[in-house]
Amino acid sequence: CICNLRVSVSKILIISYFTDVNWGSSTQALTYLNALQHSIRLSGVEDHVKNFRPQCLIMTGAPNARPALLHLVHAFTKNVGLMICGHVHMGPRRQAMKELSTDLAKYQRWLIKNKMKAFYAPVHAEDLRDGGQYLMQAAGLGRMRPNTLVVGFKKNWRQSDMRDVETYINLFHDAFDIQYGVVVIRLKEGLDISHLQGQEELLSSQEKSPCSKDVVVKVDYGKKSETDTSIAFFPSSSERTPAVHKEEDEDGKTPTQPLLKKDSKSRSSPLNLADQRLLDASSQFQKKQGKSNIDVWWLFDDGGLTLLIPYLITTKKKWKECKIRVFIGGKINRIDHDRRAMATLLSKFRIDFSDIMVLGDINTKPKKENTVNGGVSSSITAWMLRCKYILILLYILNSVSDF
Amino acid sequence: CICNLRVSVSKILIISYFTDVNWGSSTQALTYLNALQHSIRLSGVEDHVKNFRPQCLIMTGAPNARPALLHLVHAFTKNVGLMICGHVHMGPRRQAMKELSTDLAKYQRWLIKNKMKAFYAPVHAEDLRDGGQYLMQAAGLGRMRPNTLVVGFKKNWRQSDMRDVETYINLFHDAFDIQYGVVVIRLKEGLDISHLQGQEELLSSQEKSPCSKDVVVKVDYGKKSETDTSIAFFPSSSERTPAVHKEEDEDGKTPTQPLLKKDSKSRSSPLNLADQRLLDASSQFQKKQGKSNIDVWWLFDDGGLTLLIPYLITTKKKWKECKIRVFIGGKINRIDHDRRAMATLLSKFRIDFSDIMVLGDINTKPKKENTVNGGVSSSITAWMLRCKYILILLYILNSVSDF
Repeated sequence: CICNLRVSVSKILIISYFTDVNWGSSTQALTYLNALQHSIRLSGVEDHVKNFRPQCLIMTGAPNARPALLHLVHAFTKNVGLMICGHVHMGPRRQAMKELSTDLAKYQRWLIKNKMKAFYAPVHAEDLRDGGQYLMQAAGLGRMRPNTLVVGFKKNWRQSDMRDVETYINLFHDAFDIQYGVVVIRLKEGLDISHLQGQEELLSSQEKSPCSKDVVVKVDYGKKSETDTSIAFFPSSSERTPAVHKEEDEDGKTPTQPLLKKDSKSRSSPLNLADQRLLDASSQFQKKQGKSNIDVWWLFDDGGLTLLIPYLITTKKKWKECKIRVFIGGKINRIDHDRRAMATLLSKFRIDFSDIMVLGDINTKPKKENTVNGGVSSSITAWMLRCKYILILLYILNSVSDF
Repeated sequence: CICNLRVSVSKILIISYFTDVNWGSSTQALTYLNALQHSIRLSGVEDHVKNFRPQCLIMTGAPNARPALLHLVHAFTKNVGLMICGHVHMGPRRQAMKELSTDLAKYQRWLIKNKMKAFYAPVHAEDLRDGGQYLMQAAGLGRMRPNTLVVGFKKNWRQSDMRDVETYINLFHDAFDIQYGVVVIRLKEGLDISHLQGQEELLSSQEKSPCSKDVVVKVDYGKKSETDTSIAFFPSSSERTPAVHKEEDEDGKTPTQPLLKKDSKSRSSPLNLADQRLLDASSQFQKKQGKSNIDVWWLFDDGGLTLLIPYLITTKKKWKECKIRVFIGGKINRIDHDRRAMATLLSKFRIDFSDIMVLGDINTKPKKENTVNGGVSSSITAWMLRCKYILILLYILNSVSDF
């Protein structure tokens, strides 16, 4: 009898050895039902101030291509709102479809491995605009659907094909048409690191290095050609561009040599200075932010969303020492009155702020020497030259204006 | 002091009276977080046999337009899988966008009111095919994304514009390209009741009436013109069309007069016979199905999905008295052997069946008089003429073939 039992045991072992099937667990099956049930329950809840969330569709491309974009958005959506990484595949359909299905598993795994609470959503389309349409219109489930489009600033807009720029701008128009808010994030160094060999490895080695001050932007008021792109973009949509950005306090140090490690196996040649800076900038949001300022440009009362995102950012551990400064426009003869009115509003929002700056010259004509930059008031110009990165919020969401 | 308290109470009352804002509850805010967290947790689970689900994208148009489609799919997705009602808005963009946002709230509420565990997903696109692309590529969140496209059979394919038919057929091709399964549901009476005035009211009054046998299809072997559309569609994709359908046992009664109620306020004129039949057919899946057969055509081994949906249907209360009959093709000289092999397979699936029919003549040439119908074997022709509705599954999903 024991012999008989042994035979059957060895049989079972052989069977389980030969069938290479993932049978999963019932707990995992339950995970599906939980997710489904909760999503359905959510769809029965009406929109109101307590369930408004910044639900972001980020045009990251491959999620590992623009780490700065990913990390900054994750800072205000993690555990609070939705984050979907949109990836538009272009080119021949058959080829793209194959890529799509392999990418789906690969990048979702990458997101989990990198502790990003986000969903990966690849589509195949004619161009970026079409793909954006697909995602903006159809992505999400019930009430868990994006309401905000996040894109990186198109760095090469001067050099690239006009049609590309048009596609890029039309993406914004489409977003407004279907009632999305738009967030544009700009780093001086750029966002896309996909051209760097083994960029992930680089980034993770970067992460381990102590928080260096190398990335402080060199302020050079004379060097117009380097800085005027940042300014040129600003007024073109200034009608609805309250700007939020974080300013690294200048410390006056001369930049130390960038870190050029050569121990990595996958890297054959050292990075050039621009790429090294790009990498440094890309990893900056994974580090503690220290005592910095988050500057909010409250140019008109859009219902409070311009303040919501900076506020959400300051609730995170890495950003908790940052202070919010609010910039508003006002008249020179009543600056004090305007400041007090804003302070009252902010205390109603229960948002802690370090300072309120009232710009009296916001409506005065710019000086002659600044007009090449598109005619922005001189105080804004000065501020923009100092700031480290700019996050432009274009919000037309007014359904939650009573936030 | 009491007076003071009273004053403040009345103040509060006044405030809550004047502000017309839905402040929601914290429980509702938590609902969002629950849904989000569970969805994110799900995205970390690998695909395996225990979390494969039929996740259906149904092209319903407005969810109340094709109730039969909705109810039949709900029978096998409710509490088990995902159900998304796709609605493609066409026409001028600005107008459609307005409709979209009003429809979103309206139809999601309609679904909840009608106890459908489903999501409403409207998009604006050039045509049905484009809209299908939007939804198939981008709808859903993480692992909760459709894997099966469900469409109604295009009833007017002979009369309508060839371009419409092409669009319809291309929808299937697109679905296969992105690894979707396709389910086509056909009712002889049709599916779309949106042309009927106050169709919802009609349907709900219909629901209360006792389950009538009026909808039994009149079997008339001589009347070719009425029946050949159902057959003509079948062989054109027979290479991969295991068909599942439910057959109402013929009871030989002469049809009683259709129910023509005139008590409804919104109806000005009585319905014609065709519309009355359409309404009867549309509400049939809301009733108990009684002792009927679900016929499964297992034409080739596609991994078991052809059986999964019928099996899921029989687990529901309304369908629990239905029996599954399996039809397979075989050779005349080994019918018994084929039947036993199939019975073994079904017992491995632990699926209860009432009968297995082996069709020996499936590969024999059709008789002369049947060739107008596209050359289907005579036993299939006879069966098709008797069946009440046809649900055609086109599955190419082979990732879960080890189910």
